[in-house]
Amino acid sequence: MSERVCISLDAMGGDHGPSTVVPGAAIALERHPGTRFIMFGDEAVVGPLIEAEPRLKGAVELRHTTYAIAMDDKPSQAVRQGRGKSSMWRAIQAVRDGEADAAVSAGNTGALMAMSKICLKTMAGIERPAIACLWPTVRGESVVLDVGATIGTDAEHLVEMAVMGSAMARIVFDLERPTVGLLNVGTEEMKGNEAVKEAARLLREHDAANFSYHGFVEGTDLGRGTVDVVVTEGFTGNIALKTAEGTAKQISSYLRSAMTRTLSAKIGALFARQAFRALKDKMNPSRANGGVFLGLEGIVIKSHGSENAAGFASAVDLAHDMARHDLMRTIRDMLDETPTTMARV
Amino acid sequence: MSERVCISLDAMGGDHGPSTVVPGAAIALERHPGTRFIMFGDEAVVGPLIEAEPRLKGAVELRHTTYAIAMDDKPSQAVRQGRGKSSMWRAIQAVRDGEADAAVSAGNTGALMAMSKICLKTMAGIERPAIACLWPTVRGESVVLDVGATIGTDAEHLVEMAVMGSAMARIVFDLERPTVGLLNVGTEEMKGNEAVKEAARLLREHDAANFSYHGFVEGTDLGRGTVDVVVTEGFTGNIALKTAEGTAKQISSYLRSAMTRTLSAKIGALFARQAFRALKDKMNPSRANGGVFLGLEGIVIKSHGSENAAGFASAVDLAHDMARHDLMRTIRDMLDETPTTMARV
Repeated sequence: MSERVCISLDAMGGDHGPSTVVPGAAIALERHPGTRFIMFGDEAVVGPLIEAEPRLKGAVELRHTTYAIAMDDKPSQAVRQGRGKSSMWRAIQAVRDGEADAAVSAGNTGALMAMSKICLKTMAGIERPAIACLWPTVRGESVVLDVGATIGTDAEHLVEMAVMGSAMARIVFDLERPTVGLLNVGTEEMKGNEAVKEAARLLREHDAANFSYHGFVEGTDLGRGTVDVVVTEGFTGNIALKTAEGTAKQISSYLRSAMTRTLSAKIGALFARQAFRALKDKMNPSRANGGVFLGLEGIVIKSHGSENAAGFASAVDLAHDMARHDLMRTIRDMLDETPTTMARV
Repeated sequence: MSERVCISLDAMGGDHGPSTVVPGAAIALERHPGTRFIMFGDEAVVGPLIEAEPRLKGAVELRHTTYAIAMDDKPSQAVRQGRGKSSMWRAIQAVRDGEADAAVSAGNTGALMAMSKICLKTMAGIERPAIACLWPTVRGESVVLDVGATIGTDAEHLVEMAVMGSAMARIVFDLERPTVGLLNVGTEEMKGNEAVKEAARLLREHDAANFSYHGFVEGTDLGRGTVDVVVTEGFTGNIALKTAEGTAKQISSYLRSAMTRTLSAKIGALFARQAFRALKDKMNPSRANGGVFLGLEGIVIKSHGSENAAGFASAVDLAHDMARHDLMRTIRDMLDETPTTMARV
């Protein structure tokens, strides 16, 4: 890693493309002065946007690309048509070639993962990559994975995710020995499917040096922040994440309508407007935006496709954090320390 | 079904046992005058509680039982030790014997399902029962199943659940042709595991007369109320339900702390106290309490173990609704109307 963190950006990715990516980079740069960006995208569109951001002056190198992956392209199609030339591929390639320390894209998740696997390769000792996110809790934040990289799992994959998620938690939360829980339908030993039961046995029997296995956790434990790292299969993890997002939106809408129904409520809302602003900020999904791809030979961050510039900036922050603290080496070290009895045969 | 709905109650079930069941029954009776209850439990404990509830006078028949299933008993153990004699078994048996139209228990879910399957048997044409709940949405409520009866699924089971969930939605929402969605990690055809993809194909190709297949829905659609019935596998459904509960609690705690942090916020909260009360009521999980066991030869409702009397009353309301509208016959009719091409071979 170079002295100054360099982040490659897929300027064409996401619902809003460069109109969010460019100002998002500018916001992140204010928080991390000295960061360099390599942006990949259509010069004619991205160039003027960069020009319009004086904050980015001298920090961005724009590289022209002619092809952009669509949000609804199938991963296989995206790889076939976008390999080597798309803004997404080129951003990942910059990480592979050592030009950038991390890549950020708000594009199509499936395409980004497929390209990352092909371009960067999976880490030695890891069967399948996972996507981890930071989940806001009443105690702060937890690392939750997998939120949608792969469908279906086995015990060994869950154990791998425990190790990778702990590496991320060590960096983000600055913890020596994060606590890890397996998401299940109950906390009793007999509960759950074969994969979680077997993973629990492996984690219990081979007490890892670099994280502490807490046991099973339930859906209610996510918001509670019972553990630092919550491990689950990608189908369930994705649905849990989107269910929480949906519930937060639902309650916001209840709150809004309750606060405008009567004059007295409106007066109350006026007095409490700062409190509501703080609450809104706390519930703002942009603050926790960014899915970290774990298990690849390089750092790739997925920003939510519909996020605004502030949300994209959070994903860039995350990329910066992961690069500065050398996520790759932390994962490798933790894998090395993992008893071979726990690893895949 | 008799003219007057009769509901059997496991008076010993739940974290608080008869001290919630008895007043809960009294609350429900006020909303459904004429309902009769058969309560099973320890006479020495339950008797005085019934005496203390003048509202229940003449509506309750108490039958003495000496054995109660513990909340942490394994289902197999509960069946072995509690068969024939426990308050839980006897409540279910009253349904089997035609004495009651529905049974309600706040006891151990696994034990209640195991006993229900043995005592009542699974319906012809149904492979595995499911647990359905009413999910509060911004548009009202949706039926969501399975929230934890079985772990793992296949396409045919998902289709069966679509039929059973629609039967329940027809009754609860008074809809001729409810809309049904399959919970998935995305709405595109290629998304998800084999079971949901195959179930989607079956549901799409064999357009059912008694419900309308909407397509895939995501976690965010749950709170939005995109469809009347959301079908998913029990592991994921249980985690989604508990994640939503946890998120609601988390936001309540944010709101409480935001509203007490400054004097201005406190004044605002005072003006808005009625609005907050309405919000609290809206977010109150007790209102939607009650898991309906679908696919058995009889109606069994599971009340949340930690609910208070008001919550238990909601579960009794649900039992009353299901019995009065003859859930069993509705499911049977809908199964009969289901094309055989969709049914299990």
